[in-house]
Amino acid sequence: MTAPVSPTQVSWHHRHVLDVDVLTAGEIDLVMRTTDAMHEVLARPIPKVPALRGKNVTIIFWEASTRTRVSFEVAAKNLSADVVNIAAGTSSVTKGESLVDTIRTVEALGADMIVMRHGTSGAPYLAAEVFSGHVLNGGDGWHAHPSQALLDLYTMRAHLGDLRGRKVVILGDILHSRVARSNIWTLTAAGADLWLCGPTTILRGFEAWAARWNAGRAAPGHGRFTVTSDVDAALRDADVVMALRLQRERMDAGLLPSLREYAARYGLTRERLALARPEALVMHPGPMNEGVEIAPDVAVLDRSVITEQVANGVAVRMALLFLLAGDRSEGGIGG
Amino acid sequence: MTAPVSPTQVSWHHRHVLDVDVLTAGEIDLVMRTTDAMHEVLARPIPKVPALRGKNVTIIFWEASTRTRVSFEVAAKNLSADVVNIAAGTSSVTKGESLVDTIRTVEALGADMIVMRHGTSGAPYLAAEVFSGHVLNGGDGWHAHPSQALLDLYTMRAHLGDLRGRKVVILGDILHSRVARSNIWTLTAAGADLWLCGPTTILRGFEAWAARWNAGRAAPGHGRFTVTSDVDAALRDADVVMALRLQRERMDAGLLPSLREYAARYGLTRERLALARPEALVMHPGPMNEGVEIAPDVAVLDRSVITEQVANGVAVRMALLFLLAGDRSEGGIGG
Amino acid sequence: MTAPVSPTQVSWHHRHVLDVDVLTAGEIDLVMRTTDAMHEVLARPIPKVPALRGKNVTIIFWEASTRTRVSFEVAAKNLSADVVNIAAGTSSVTKGESLVDTIRTVEALGADMIVMRHGTSGAPYLAAEVFSGHVLNGGDGWHAHPSQALLDLYTMRAHLGDLRGRKVVILGDILHSRVARSNIWTLTAAGADLWLCGPTTILRGFEAWAARWNAGRAAPGHGRFTVTSDVDAALRDADVVMALRLQRERMDAGLLPSLREYAARYGLTRERLALARPEALVMHPGPMNEGVEIAPDVAVLDRSVITEQVANGVAVRMALLFLLAGDRSEGGIGG
Repeated sequence: MTAPVSPTQVSWHHRHVLDVDVLTAGEIDLVMRTTDAMHEVLARPIPKVPALRGKNVTIIFWEASTRTRVSFEVAAKNLSADVVNIAAGTSSVTKGESLVDTIRTVEALGADMIVMRHGTSGAPYLAAEVFSGHVLNGGDGWHAHPSQALLDLYTMRAHLGDLRGRKVVILGDILHSRVARSNIWTLTAAGADLWLCGPTTILRGFEAWAARWNAGRAAPGHGRFTVTSDVDAALRDADVVMALRLQRERMDAGLLPSLREYAARYGLTRERLALARPEALVMHPGPMNEGVEIAPDVAVLDRSVITEQVANGVAVRMALLFLLAGDRSEGGIGG
Repeated sequence: MTAPVSPTQVSWHHRHVLDVDVLTAGEIDLVMRTTDAMHEVLARPIPKVPALRGKNVTIIFWEASTRTRVSFEVAAKNLSADVVNIAAGTSSVTKGESLVDTIRTVEALGADMIVMRHGTSGAPYLAAEVFSGHVLNGGDGWHAHPSQALLDLYTMRAHLGDLRGRKVVILGDILHSRVARSNIWTLTAAGADLWLCGPTTILRGFEAWAARWNAGRAAPGHGRFTVTSDVDAALRDADVVMALRLQRERMDAGLLPSLREYAARYGLTRERLALARPEALVMHPGPMNEGVEIAPDVAVLDRSVITEQVANGVAVRMALLFLLAGDRSEGGIGG
Repeated sequence: MTAPVSPTQVSWHHRHVLDVDVLTAGEIDLVMRTTDAMHEVLARPIPKVPALRGKNVTIIFWEASTRTRVSFEVAAKNLSADVVNIAAGTSSVTKGESLVDTIRTVEALGADMIVMRHGTSGAPYLAAEVFSGHVLNGGDGWHAHPSQALLDLYTMRAHLGDLRGRKVVILGDILHSRVARSNIWTLTAAGADLWLCGPTTILRGFEAWAARWNAGRAAPGHGRFTVTSDVDAALRDADVVMALRLQRERMDAGLLPSLREYAARYGLTRERLALARPEALVMHPGPMNEGVEIAPDVAVLDRSVITEQVANGVAVRMALLFLLAGDRSEGGIGG
């Protein structure tokens, strides 16, 4: 873990957190150090600071979620914000109102910051165009899940330090995974050797993307990313293995085999994990389908850091909320 | 806008806000001036005052809503109340408990104020009989929506000042609209020349009502109200045009034509709006069905004050909560 | 009511509240006296104390509930806790995540205390094994509902004082009632003469249980418990009559007669109540099916304490939260 420094000493120029692909290595570093500071806050007897006092954080989710929603809610409350929850699936949003109208309404209702999850890729970008405050993307379609990628990165760095040359494997339905897409950016930017592994049927497009990425887009120091359906090749000597949640509804579309077959061919079992380094970290964004993409006895290994990911998620989201709108004066994160 | 005065100088004698028809012109004025004061609170860096500190505001909605529910929630939190949300559709209320038992239970659970929306006209009156605290009607059946009428009035006065002689048109399914019913009282009381316009099939009963109203009920200075299905006559030289949300379920009942036909005959388009005064305000209680009762290009005109209505809604609801139960001492709405 | 004493003078050794059957008579007494203290807090103009400031109370309900959920929410807020609500039926919990994973996740998200309701008997015990904080059982399957039993006891003692020798009748579907099961413990421990009465079809097993209980398990001073389907025998000279909610879904399983027949044979009517003592208390855990297990005119009798049960529920739950994790220093429940 990097040495904690005061996040008040550095600058941050983004008004929104829509994806990680606009963050420089320095900015990602700033998020990591601010997260360290937030962990210090969380370790206090009363883990609250007044940094967002009087600010209204409206959390509006068009898709059901527990951990991401609650994580942002707890993060915002720890910073003393007022939190308004809107479950858009059961709200007037379902009455046919357009996304733009909903965002304008939420702003008029007093929102200073909007945390949103939406089934359509790009929806938070549209929201950011019409909202005068700050938008945090809590997941949009297959596109991006920036706070998840940042908490994943934080968790890996906490255990491995510098990720340059480390082999990180993301295993599962990478095609439909916003977690995978956002992780590609942060992990290659951190210099990791990234492998994406899943059934052939869902790799289409990714191979071409990887080729373009490796050839031209990567800055010096950036890691490569490799796409394969060969689980053994992917896992061999891995430093980190992240299993993705299998979205059961994908199987209906014929893109994935049966649950049993998927578990047999791509599930992260002790046998498969034995191919990785002995101390390889086991990760999962949750919620887990135990016995499908990850075996129950793997999920509870000492080197499984799945619960740690959740805890880091609160601190990372506090950091993001703080960087966007927190009071950086003495009083902001003081005791 | 009227000059802001301290709401502590005037008196308020109502225990509940069930409808606007019991409010005198002076009391309506008091709500308007208190709303001004609340806007001043909202303009502060930390828009919170301790006026309802320690008070429990329970918001119980038997019908789904985003804007009204969240508006009351934000208003109550801005006054430092503790807010409890109950979505009655998913609560034990659906287990067959009577309304009276539910209200008694909510009181025993600690509610000082109840904000309720119910599908049955008159339900808040029954609640007010058994509840020892304060009831605010957030909409009951087709009957009343007092806070909406007050925010509409506030919005019009902010732009037009005195409404005497101003032509205000409410366009759409007025038969099933509690918004229209509550607006009739406040707008005629303010001296406006009110026109209600919609399909012939839903005007039945309204014409007789208008005749009785104009003949006998109106106090001196009250405006007239006119009912018509002639859109052009209604819009001509209007100062305000408020389009009502089309409740799609009404069409199934055969009372309204198809969406396309409704939009063609009653939708608020640029062409139709050209009949009104050049600076006529465009209003809508939301959520909008854009392309049905209002054209998208009309909703975003400079003179459209739809988002302003939402923002005024928070301030009006703060005013109502404050007038019913707020601490009016120095500390109540002080910084 | 026992004389209020400072709850800071006594000790409490339980980390969780899973059921009442582990509470000694002295500990039950402590809960009662702490509840008295909480009633004093509730009587203050601002009924809030800082005892749980900075603590995160996560309320996660796998079954719908209004009164128990809101009661815990208000109780926690009165103690200045931060409350997070999770409706597990609509959360990622339904995505197939295991209970253990959910509890670990909720802990990682920052929960210091979990209040849970679950359809499976014993679920809170499993939660308590993996959670490092405090678990409060808000009802598990048919098994237990400890806070309900404690508020029932508190309500009876407030009116009757010492319960030794008092005849308490619980009437209805006792087989499927966690309320009945938890009440058996607290009421016999308090020395009451407890009668459970319901249709023959649901008494199976209870008679053998009662026999074993009366023969061997009861400590000296403990009351007996009697099982019968004879309503008249049960009600005769009763000091307390508690009607249980009829779970309508039980009838589908063929265990109970039709609603009409159930109401005719087991409903608590004025005629039946006339068999009890003139001042006998009428109780019900709510929500009531009026006209089924209890007649509307019985529910509103002066000696009906059903609403009082709800109000006592908030104070009892404040007491439990306080005993588990409250700050017992001067500042904890000071003004």
